[in-house]
Amino acid sequence: MNVVVRNIRRADPAVVEAYSGIGVATVHEAQGRKGLLASTMRPIYRPCHIAGTAVTCEMAPGDNWMLHVAVEQCRKGDILVAAPTSPCEDGYFGELIATQLQTRGVAGLILEAGCRDVAELTKMGFPVWSRSVFAQGTVKETVGNVNMPLVCAGQLINPGDLIVADDDGIVVVRRKDAANVLKLSQEREEKEAKSRQRYLKGELSLDVNNMRGKLAERGLKYIDNPPED
Amino acid sequence: MNVVVRNIRRADPAVVEAYSGIGVATVHEAQGRKGLLASTMRPIYRPCHIAGTAVTCEMAPGDNWMLHVAVEQCRKGDILVAAPTSPCEDGYFGELIATQLQTRGVAGLILEAGCRDVAELTKMGFPVWSRSVFAQGTVKETVGNVNMPLVCAGQLINPGDLIVADDDGIVVVRRKDAANVLKLSQEREEKEAKSRQRYLKGELSLDVNNMRGKLAERGLKYIDNPPED
Amino acid sequence: MNVVVRNIRRADPAVVEAYSGIGVATVHEAQGRKGLLASTMRPIYRPCHIAGTAVTCEMAPGDNWMLHVAVEQCRKGDILVAAPTSPCEDGYFGELIATQLQTRGVAGLILEAGCRDVAELTKMGFPVWSRSVFAQGTVKETVGNVNMPLVCAGQLINPGDLIVADDDGIVVVRRKDAANVLKLSQEREEKEAKSRQRYLKGELSLDVNNMRGKLAERGLKYIDNPPED
Amino acid sequence: MNVVVRNIRRADPAVVEAYSGIGVATVHEAQGRKGLLASTMRPIYRPCHIAGTAVTCEMAPGDNWMLHVAVEQCRKGDILVAAPTSPCEDGYFGELIATQLQTRGVAGLILEAGCRDVAELTKMGFPVWSRSVFAQGTVKETVGNVNMPLVCAGQLINPGDLIVADDDGIVVVRRKDAANVLKLSQEREEKEAKSRQRYLKGELSLDVNNMRGKLAERGLKYIDNPPED
Amino acid sequence: MNVVVRNIRRADPAVVEAYSGIGVATVHEAQGRKGLLASTMRPIYRPCHIAGTAVTCEMAPGDNWMLHVAVEQCRKGDILVAAPTSPCEDGYFGELIATQLQTRGVAGLILEAGCRDVAELTKMGFPVWSRSVFAQGTVKETVGNVNMPLVCAGQLINPGDLIVADDDGIVVVRRKDAANVLKLSQEREEKEAKSRQRYLKGELSLDVNNMRGKLAERGLKYIDNPPED
Amino acid sequence: MNVVVRNIRRADPAVVEAYSGIGVATVHEAQGRKGLLASTMRPIYRPCHIAGTAVTCEMAPGDNWMLHVAVEQCRKGDILVAAPTSPCEDGYFGELIATQLQTRGVAGLILEAGCRDVAELTKMGFPVWSRSVFAQGTVKETVGNVNMPLVCAGQLINPGDLIVADDDGIVVVRRKDAANVLKLSQEREEKEAKSRQRYLKGELSLDVNNMRGKLAERGLKYIDNPPED
Repeated sequence: MNVVVRNIRRADPAVVEAYSGIGVATVHEAQGRKGLLASTMRPIYRPCHIAGTAVTCEMAPGDNWMLHVAVEQCRKGDILVAAPTSPCEDGYFGELIATQLQTRGVAGLILEAGCRDVAELTKMGFPVWSRSVFAQGTVKETVGNVNMPLVCAGQLINPGDLIVADDDGIVVVRRKDAANVLKLSQEREEKEAKSRQRYLKGELSLDVNNMRGKLAERGLKYIDNPPED
Repeated sequence: MNVVVRNIRRADPAVVEAYSGIGVATVHEAQGRKGLLASTMRPIYRPCHIAGTAVTCEMAPGDNWMLHVAVEQCRKGDILVAAPTSPCEDGYFGELIATQLQTRGVAGLILEAGCRDVAELTKMGFPVWSRSVFAQGTVKETVGNVNMPLVCAGQLINPGDLIVADDDGIVVVRRKDAANVLKLSQEREEKEAKSRQRYLKGELSLDVNNMRGKLAERGLKYIDNPPED
Repeated sequence: MNVVVRNIRRADPAVVEAYSGIGVATVHEAQGRKGLLASTMRPIYRPCHIAGTAVTCEMAPGDNWMLHVAVEQCRKGDILVAAPTSPCEDGYFGELIATQLQTRGVAGLILEAGCRDVAELTKMGFPVWSRSVFAQGTVKETVGNVNMPLVCAGQLINPGDLIVADDDGIVVVRRKDAANVLKLSQEREEKEAKSRQRYLKGELSLDVNNMRGKLAERGLKYIDNPPED
Repeated sequence: MNVVVRNIRRADPAVVEAYSGIGVATVHEAQGRKGLLASTMRPIYRPCHIAGTAVTCEMAPGDNWMLHVAVEQCRKGDILVAAPTSPCEDGYFGELIATQLQTRGVAGLILEAGCRDVAELTKMGFPVWSRSVFAQGTVKETVGNVNMPLVCAGQLINPGDLIVADDDGIVVVRRKDAANVLKLSQEREEKEAKSRQRYLKGELSLDVNNMRGKLAERGLKYIDNPPED
Repeated sequence: MNVVVRNIRRADPAVVEAYSGIGVATVHEAQGRKGLLASTMRPIYRPCHIAGTAVTCEMAPGDNWMLHVAVEQCRKGDILVAAPTSPCEDGYFGELIATQLQTRGVAGLILEAGCRDVAELTKMGFPVWSRSVFAQGTVKETVGNVNMPLVCAGQLINPGDLIVADDDGIVVVRRKDAANVLKLSQEREEKEAKSRQRYLKGELSLDVNNMRGKLAERGLKYIDNPPED
Repeated sequence: MNVVVRNIRRADPAVVEAYSGIGVATVHEAQGRKGLLASTMRPIYRPCHIAGTAVTCEMAPGDNWMLHVAVEQCRKGDILVAAPTSPCEDGYFGELIATQLQTRGVAGLILEAGCRDVAELTKMGFPVWSRSVFAQGTVKETVGNVNMPLVCAGQLINPGDLIVADDDGIVVVRRKDAANVLKLSQEREEKEAKSRQRYLKGELSLDVNNMRGKLAERGLKYIDNPPED
């Protein structure tokens, strides 16, 4: 049976909004180096940064029908996350669906397939992370699921999970971890800001992070270049 | 025998010109979802859009000699379409050949191989769609063919066919179909413009395109999220 | 044994500086079509151009510890060249190490692995050529080598060799060849400038480079298009 | 926190055993065309066919420590399913761990990474489906999880789920669906056996499956080849 | 409009049969190094060798309906050549269609998509060259074309053309060239047989093919290894 | 200048012979996890195992002329190692050159390009590790180098270095390290044989290698499955 799940539980909007400007690499580190989608997913333009709650969409290969269905389930602050049931690089998404999503306040699209109309999407400022850019059209024959758990680019995405995406890629944070990971991410940012100040003055991470002793323990030797050969 | 075919028949220049601004995705849909080159072909800069008539060039792997030969067969409004006889990512093309082509009024290059001098080409505004960017030089030892039918990135290209290329990729339209596909493309654009207006007001493609009945027929169900787990 | 070699011999700084603005394709041709790194290495932003002397860094897969070590061995005018001992696309490098390198006057990084913080690196103007963009973090557990000969993206790089990198890719010039290749590159640029002037006036490389005779010898025939089919 | 979950619930052994000889393609169709792992996962030798219950293992990139931990959680009739937290093609698995698994009655390994000792594994008759064959060794530094839900080659695998793998690839069946999908698979096999008999006598699927009418409806036309050109 | 062309003209069966045992590499060289399909097409088992006349089949992505239609157009001595209109690795073909083809005397299948049931096909001795092995099922919704010219794996295939396929790959020979290329292939085989005899006695191709003079002309020097470093 | 270096120094033949039967994974571990060529290099048949001394050959892309030159420099016990100066998958090598090499007692070929005649090579028992199988022919126009240091599949190979290749891949051992790495490899094999005996009796590597304490230290917890959900 194929279903559309309405009224999913979403990560707290106040928490989601606070992720604004926090990078994917930071979030990924803060939650213990997990949750990254595959690096084959690339943004159609840069720079870009979005954070929002996942509405998930499972589609048949070469068939974008369910994207149209998913649009209706999206609200302001959501990010649509869509994947085909078999690998496909066809152009599932273009500016007409983007117009609907943007009108509803959706922040962007994560699409493990192909995107088209990238010039128009860039002009509109609607960011898409996709596996390919390809004009190949799709059909509307087969139904799938909206807001069921979904594997997208190697990660399990639950509806309502927090998604952060930027130039570096995409990370998923479980809905219930969103507040805690936010706090850890902010702490990490503060710590990094302090390190950055020291590095700008010429200090080295070797010293700032006390690496020299451990390096010697592991057997690293320093030698001088032998005389000219 | 290797030949250069002169004075090929080309799609009507007035028709070709009218494709200005019509996107690859639109043309591809208008002619029945066919004619797209493989998505491995990417533009060296974005945004970009060209339409023109194909001059074809078949080259030996690692040998760009025939590109020099092909230049002479190109006229204002043409697009050079070149492919090696065996897969190759070497840098067949750079700004010196581009200068010759641009001086002759050629709109751009479709190259199923590598391109180099991409910074200079970007500055010149000469667009290239290629399989790779690679500085690797080529030799000038083996002859090939100009203006013979050619398979490029998975599509058969006849000399004089219409080529449209933009940020989404490349599509070929048969010479004799160019006028008819133009009409269908323009109709499609008008229809899409109307839909866009409705989407901007918050309407959904589910309703604009009457999808709800067919979705129900195919068994799609709507359910509400179960209470908190 | 793992070592850090200090005080390596570097290509002459005056020679290195003179490579400013000379493209990778030109250098590669000038030294006899050799020294190019694989085309899988792409710059994180464009346009970009750097020339500098190589400091090499061999790292364990998924472990960026030695990058921190390598920073200290870098001086103004260097380019850090780093590769893992097994293929890896993890994000070894981000803006904190970049800040240290930029503060020391390092021109850029060649990294046969993944890069992250690409938005920040773009803003800082610190160019990186990498195999992937990926936020995946790394550990600091295993030591490697700094300033030992290293294979990076298919080329052997010796510490102190000259590296030139731009939008087209990366080329290595042996330290002792740097001055001679500079001279050959400059000659090539002058010759190309003259050709460009002729091409801008409508001349063809077929004539400028006297290709017509050799083409005929190799059996190339010119024919006119047959009458309409 | 990293955990090893002991005494997982497994699909019914009698049901699992009944999958013996039922192909992956059949199971995949019988459960509604879902559950296939990516086609990048290939068996190290052919022919091969196994069915068993999943023990899952999440490992750090370049680190096979958790495979050693997972062995102890495996019983007769299990299949070990392992994936790294970041893409990695290193050789996580060889004949020494295989010996332990085979001694315990484990049917085979699904490994989204590299395998080595493939000649020995072939001789032992211990089948492995992996992303690559690569001798590259791994370290034992970082802990992960055993018997937690895991995404492997694009599919979510729960501990205790049924896995069927053969020359065509790998399919996962949810633990609770195992009995029902078995019944559907067997029905499908019987139906196919009947069709096969008819095809062997020269009948066509066009007729056996009544396709001609629907094809005509969709507009398919039959024409004869024009006279010799 | 989608069509099935019946009663195509085929290469002469006596000529086709004479290709038995002549390798793809030989045919490719004999016809002037052209006609090879991309190396991404691999046989599902080895060794294998077939020669036959092409029946072509164009299919929608993820839809194998037209394969069923194409079966009826195949005769003894044919090879079915099938490609989707957009890149797809789904499993279009398995043993049930193979049974129909084999019953009709078809020699094998060239499929620019995925194949399944490879264990059964191997047992049946029905060879397939495909882009992937993947159990993913397809639908039967969209019609395409049979016996229209088709681009498959980078080569244009006309219905009735000669196809030769073996462990090395696949080559197409135009219908009208089949007899002439056969003669050239046989001459090449005879010449190679003579060379082989000389090589078995210890002679070198350097001498058998008189290469030494030309090598010296191109500047190749022989030097002895320097004394121990 | 292009050179052929004659009479290179080779690893001691007695030492080389003693590598017979020692696997690539073992040698790679014994010498400290280094020296592996990229996993993109695959044997044309399995099982296979060779050990020998490297004769290196650098070739132009699409040009196999230097392979003919290199044959003459090969002796009994050598392995030819060949790579193009730019990535190329053309079929550089077939049974005619193999016949010459086999007649001279050469053990096999490592070829970072394409191989053809793989059925014949399999029948002859001449093993080749290559990047692709492709019938595409090459030309004989450009000279290169024999017995100069060469980067092949990501590793620097010096003439005379020891090469071991088997089903798992290829490893290079520096000429001067050959004896020492042999000793370490044999010790490793003995140690593994002892472990294997214990594993066959049901012992676990967790205990044989004392891993339990360190795992607990790193925070690994064991829990029992929660009651049925």
